[in-house]
Formats: sequence, structure tokens, C-alpha cells
Amino acid sequence: MSLLDLLFGQKQKTASVAKERLQLIIARERSGEQSSPDFLPQLQQELIAVISKYVKVNQDDIKVSLEKKNNFEVLEVNIVLPEVGQAR
Amino acid sequence: MSLLDLLFGQKQKTASVAKERLQLIIARERSGEQSSPDFLPQLQQELIAVISKYVKVNQDDIKVSLEKKNNFEVLEVNIVLPEVGQAR
Repeated sequence: MSLLDLLFGQKQKTASVAKERLQLIIARERSGEQSSPDFLPQLQQELIAVISKYVKVNQDDIKVSLEKKNNFEVLEVNIVLPEVGQAR
Repeated sequence: MSLLDLLFGQKQKTASVAKERLQLIIARERSGEQSSPDFLPQLQQELIAVISKYVKVNQDDIKVSLEKKNNFEVLEVNIVLPEVGQAR
């Protein structure tokens, strides 16, 4: 499974600085006609709230994108975490 | 951005049946020495709990995999949602 390479191999070239990053991807495949309502935007808010319980997250460091294509929806949330050393 | 194609283009060939799927990916890039603790397993539990508020999820239909490589951790959660028609 090369998902890891796909996610980071191409996109995180700028990661030479010692920062932590968290990437959250929610991909939804709808079944077409009889789909349930669009809940991704609310879900996203709650997920970020949950993540905030574990790590300090600045709202400014959250980048969100929503992509739709046919029956697919992909919500991508990129978070740059504050450096661990700052908390000391 | 072709993340959508990467996620579904290769892996969801069996999606001819009208089912809904939800894929959750949490990718974490650690900064090396001064990393914060490993919180992904607990995070995963909470995220599934949040998702369960929006859609009915059977525990049996959740597949989880955790992949680690160097400073990267990728938690992948695949959920097959019950057919919407069943709820009627």
C-alpha cells in the first residue's frame, strides 16, 4: 500500500523545517440517487474539535478544501501543528 | 489536485453495487526528536464516534490500518455505510 508515498512523497517537499503536520482526509463515495444528506462540512468542524483536544491547533494554520467529482467527495484538512518546543 | 483519483481511481473497482463508502485518512508528519506523544489510536476512536453521529456505522464494517514510515504515520479507516434504503 503506497498511500503514504502518495500523500507525502509528492506534496511535502517543503518539510525541511522541523514542524509537525497533520493531514485529515475524508473521502466519501455516494451511491447516487438515494444518498444521505451532505454532512461533510459539519463533520469537518467536529473532527477539528476532536483533534484540538490532542494537539494545540491554531485556526489560522488550518487549510480546508472540498473536492467533488461525480459520486465522490473529498474533504481535505491540512493542519500545521505548533512546534512542540513552544509549549515548554 | 488528483488526490481523489488516487484514492478512488485505483482502489474502488468493486463499487458497482450501490453502497456508500467513507474513507478517513489521518496522516501525521512528526518532526523527529521532539515529537508529541502518539495519539492517533485514541484519535481514531473519537473520530469514528463523531462519524457515527451522522451516519449509521456497523463496527463490523470498519477496517482500520496504521502505517508507519520514518517520520510519517498514516491511519486509514474504511467504512462501508449501510444502504440508505434500509432505513426507510
